[in-house]
Amino acid sequence: MRLEISKAELARRREEVAKAVAKRKMDALCLFDPQQVFYLTNFSFIATERPMCLILVGDKTYFFTPRLEKEHIELYAYDVTVESYPEFPGTKHPMEHLKELLERLELTNKTIGVDSDGAPCVFGYRGPRISEIVPQAKIKFSHDIIEDMMEVKTAEEVALIRESAKWANLALSYLQEYTEPGLTENEISLRASTEATLAMVKTFGEKDKSFTGSADSAAAGFRGQIGKYSAYPHSLTRNAIIREGDIVGTGAGPVIGGYRGELERLMIVGKPTKEQEKYFNLMCELQEIGIDAIKPRAKCSDVDKAVTKFYKDHDLMDYWRHHTGHSIGIGMHEAPFLDAGDETAMQPGMVFTVEPGIFIPGFGGFRHSDTVLVTDDGKEILTYYPRDLKSLTIL
Amino acid sequence: MRLEISKAELARRREEVAKAVAKRKMDALCLFDPQQVFYLTNFSFIATERPMCLILVGDKTYFFTPRLEKEHIELYAYDVTVESYPEFPGTKHPMEHLKELLERLELTNKTIGVDSDGAPCVFGYRGPRISEIVPQAKIKFSHDIIEDMMEVKTAEEVALIRESAKWANLALSYLQEYTEPGLTENEISLRASTEATLAMVKTFGEKDKSFTGSADSAAAGFRGQIGKYSAYPHSLTRNAIIREGDIVGTGAGPVIGGYRGELERLMIVGKPTKEQEKYFNLMCELQEIGIDAIKPRAKCSDVDKAVTKFYKDHDLMDYWRHHTGHSIGIGMHEAPFLDAGDETAMQPGMVFTVEPGIFIPGFGGFRHSDTVLVTDDGKEILTYYPRDLKSLTIL
Repeated sequence: MRLEISKAELARRREEVAKAVAKRKMDALCLFDPQQVFYLTNFSFIATERPMCLILVGDKTYFFTPRLEKEHIELYAYDVTVESYPEFPGTKHPMEHLKELLERLELTNKTIGVDSDGAPCVFGYRGPRISEIVPQAKIKFSHDIIEDMMEVKTAEEVALIRESAKWANLALSYLQEYTEPGLTENEISLRASTEATLAMVKTFGEKDKSFTGSADSAAAGFRGQIGKYSAYPHSLTRNAIIREGDIVGTGAGPVIGGYRGELERLMIVGKPTKEQEKYFNLMCELQEIGIDAIKPRAKCSDVDKAVTKFYKDHDLMDYWRHHTGHSIGIGMHEAPFLDAGDETAMQPGMVFTVEPGIFIPGFGGFRHSDTVLVTDDGKEILTYYPRDLKSLTIL
Repeated sequence: MRLEISKAELARRREEVAKAVAKRKMDALCLFDPQQVFYLTNFSFIATERPMCLILVGDKTYFFTPRLEKEHIELYAYDVTVESYPEFPGTKHPMEHLKELLERLELTNKTIGVDSDGAPCVFGYRGPRISEIVPQAKIKFSHDIIEDMMEVKTAEEVALIRESAKWANLALSYLQEYTEPGLTENEISLRASTEATLAMVKTFGEKDKSFTGSADSAAAGFRGQIGKYSAYPHSLTRNAIIREGDIVGTGAGPVIGGYRGELERLMIVGKPTKEQEKYFNLMCELQEIGIDAIKPRAKCSDVDKAVTKFYKDHDLMDYWRHHTGHSIGIGMHEAPFLDAGDETAMQPGMVFTVEPGIFIPGFGGFRHSDTVLVTDDGKEILTYYPRDLKSLTIL
């Protein structure tokens, strides 16, 4: 099992980007977004106050970096020339160093595509925009070049997402097995996450490089979605005690080679009440409608509209909170979206989560999430954890 | 132990921001940065493709949010009026909804401070800038108002950072205790992190709200800093096996009430070699110089310059990789920096990491990090894990 994107695929990506840059009559492309940098280099990094960016000029790629990351990049990043500056803020600002690099590359009066006009103001960073340091250059906002390429996954990318779905399944299996009344969400999720992570990393063994792009982890957890708190789709862990009768929202989605899938299941602790059963089944119907509507050439919005119709027909709009799903891959959420306003035509190789939910204040939230690949003739559900009430009842 | 900032302090922050807004002759302030939003609301959230921002107008605060987070914000956020839109992209773009809100607030031809000109392009988000939706308004970049306030910590903030240092100490103690040759970094860190996290959450008990602002976790780990890989200051976990003779970089910094400290220690597995002992002791001297140089009214750059002098005097500049330290609090890194280019005068209440390192390619990296509070008459080191070679040798 290959745990990262091949050099051949990275080379193809670089060529495709170079073509897009030429087609837009730009002379270079400058990328700050860590996900876009990863997409072209297989290099993951801890973003800090120190600006880092990739500059693509013709068939050459420069990695502008603080001194801190020089050897790290040289060891791991695919085919780049490293250009380093000492530090931020430094006695000379990093953007002054970047200006000098752009001068050396003879780009200061050219057309430069950027994913953002300078480094983002995070971790205490402050600095001028690119348009300020090279005022003679024409700056074109071009975040979409790579974002568009990311929309359709290649076979290698799908293989990594498929691998993520496997370890998500293991982590969620342990989580369900260890869930019982009286325990806290932390006790259960730490135990399940530890066992799944150790199984995963022992399966692959010691590596010369991180194969997850960050912490090696096959974590599963509740994220605070316990009992009535599950009615908040984005609730946060609060060390809740699991109680008999609780519905619990669970999820897992480990990163493999920089890519992830998403697996979420609503479980019920104890014999389900009539009310719980009712909403559980309605939620399953909603999800089924969403999955059924996925097919090549249909529009993303069609999926969401089909799902919304079911909400409306069953008087559930008070409990609607968000669109049907999002794309997934390097990003936890990516475009396009299964959303009424997204007219993108689905294509084979796109990968979506399908996760319509029913969120009832004071009672609880019901949601599964599966990761679905668009295929030539329909779809394939990459996550395969059981979805029915019986399988998800914890007695 | 209070596990979050008090309402009194939040109210004081709001007043101070309102004064700064008035002083700059702005009519409103619009904040997208999750850390700045948290600073004024005690509300943590999962940032996604859906724009979220806080709008401060006079003594009123509006929370512009997708439908998804409405009840969650109403439950937890301090003193806000929630204004929600359905979804992104939606049949009407969120920025169109924001425009309508700005119209209702009669701000479209006023002066609006912003921390960024629109939502950041992450998670597949695309959309117009604020300056595009309200072209008659005067947009002023004002990320610095809250960033400046964050620089000097109040007693409540220091108490939370101090609490973080305690649990970091526990997590690192377990990590050291469980480190032995033949085990992988994951086995050791998962065991230590689980035990420390359970001790922490059991100490505080079940809560109505996340007290960490994200996952409840007192994790400790190596982040791949094992043997020669420790020479990369930002190496990543790769399931390395710990071997006799390895130097290992370790760290912990749990989030308590949204705030964190940082504790890092270089440990040696087995009897240190002469070479290891030499660089360990030089690193300790570097850190001592950095800590000694911290005092109110001195400049941040003075600290870094004193440290750099030691590197130069001992012919260590080839092994220098980054500045002496950074501020810390809500952000993992914050301004000001202990950096040759940062002329900020240190003030009582500022909190810095002090972590100069010696990174030798092919051999290893030596670095401790401590969290240091500037006091009226000097400094207090908030982290208190032993720093000497004997204590950090694992036999």
